[in-house]
Amino acid sequence: MGCTANIKIVLVETSHPGNIGAVIRAMETMGVVNLVLVKPKYYPHPDIDARASNSDVVMRNIKVVNTLSEALEGSQIVLGTSARNRKVNTSVINARECGNLCAKKTHSNIAIVFGTERTGLTNEQLMECNYHVYIPANELYQSINLAHAVQIICYEIRMSQLDNAASMHHSKKEVLANHNDIEMFYDHLERVLANIKFLDLDNPKKLMVRLKRMFNRIHLEKTEVNILRGIVKSISRL
Amino acid sequence: MGCTANIKIVLVETSHPGNIGAVIRAMETMGVVNLVLVKPKYYPHPDIDARASNSDVVMRNIKVVNTLSEALEGSQIVLGTSARNRKVNTSVINARECGNLCAKKTHSNIAIVFGTERTGLTNEQLMECNYHVYIPANELYQSINLAHAVQIICYEIRMSQLDNAASMHHSKKEVLANHNDIEMFYDHLERVLANIKFLDLDNPKKLMVRLKRMFNRIHLEKTEVNILRGIVKSISRL
Repeated sequence: MGCTANIKIVLVETSHPGNIGAVIRAMETMGVVNLVLVKPKYYPHPDIDARASNSDVVMRNIKVVNTLSEALEGSQIVLGTSARNRKVNTSVINARECGNLCAKKTHSNIAIVFGTERTGLTNEQLMECNYHVYIPANELYQSINLAHAVQIICYEIRMSQLDNAASMHHSKKEVLANHNDIEMFYDHLERVLANIKFLDLDNPKKLMVRLKRMFNRIHLEKTEVNILRGIVKSISRL
Repeated sequence: MGCTANIKIVLVETSHPGNIGAVIRAMETMGVVNLVLVKPKYYPHPDIDARASNSDVVMRNIKVVNTLSEALEGSQIVLGTSARNRKVNTSVINARECGNLCAKKTHSNIAIVFGTERTGLTNEQLMECNYHVYIPANELYQSINLAHAVQIICYEIRMSQLDNAASMHHSKKEVLANHNDIEMFYDHLERVLANIKFLDLDNPKKLMVRLKRMFNRIHLEKTEVNILRGIVKSISRL
């Protein structure tokens, strides 16, 4: 499993201490351990401890600060959570893409920021973020509880880390083919298919489109493109 | 978006009404609308309404029954949630696979069952399930809150439905090739590669393994296998 030391969850002006406790527990279940509270309404508070339910690691790592800027000090990538329909110029990604980003950027300090229960992040706060993250919710009822939203985001981080760990294990870090190699393969393939009269250049239908669509669905590795080009070359020599 | 009318969430002997309310809200945010409560400790209860926070659709669809068997009446696929490390003979899938299954089996009645807060489902209850579902949690702290677990499961259902909707839109419901067709393609390919001397049958290395691994990643459609077999046939005629 990947490390999450570079990731912190930032809660801005949370009203209900129970929600803070539930966030702590949600983070602990997914192995995300750094929590920063910006001006919480109550802290400490017995409801926090009750709902956190012995999430010792996150509990030990809580920092409390007065401003969002303080919370973001040292952060290189800042992701602000918001409902999908905000009009913004920033890059908008969903929770799954956020997880992938976190699993990939293991050498960057990442902050994921959640606004108040009632109104979320203000536009001003969102301006401090490089990305906006949304959870694809029911259009008719988008109101995901704060701690549930943190749960989903941390779950996606964990899933991406597990996927990464699994695929590294399986493929021993196979190198992906670059665009150029793949294009050359397609060109060569097209000529050979014409030569063997499988492709009628005067009436190509959608043959090459279909073949490209097929190969594009997998991310071809360098060695795979080499094999495919080798096959095409052997055919062209016949 | 897909329909979730065929899916129901079943909560067995839930102790805290606040959790029931939080489950209702979690479901509503993800558009999963059918909830069955088996012998809840409290129902109705003001905490349920407070935490459900105007989740009207799910609220209207709540059924309360006395036994799990009653709750499962008419269900064709029953998924029981449990921590990963239980020893069972049933198929074990994770939350994402559960979402995929739900998005695929749109013509089956599906029940997803959650046990009590303290102990989860009993072994006897788990025996009534066709699948066990787990959420890949931190090995050192697996204790996901009931409503958070429901949130993740319903989120995965929604994500799979959105993915399906997107890919249906793209591929217009292409029919996947069956195993047999693909095997025949591999056989034919192997013979042709030997004929054109790209494959040395006395020293095959891992050529066919690599090619199969590549094509298996594509999830070939019927028409694609037909094209590939057509190409191989054309080559063998040269």
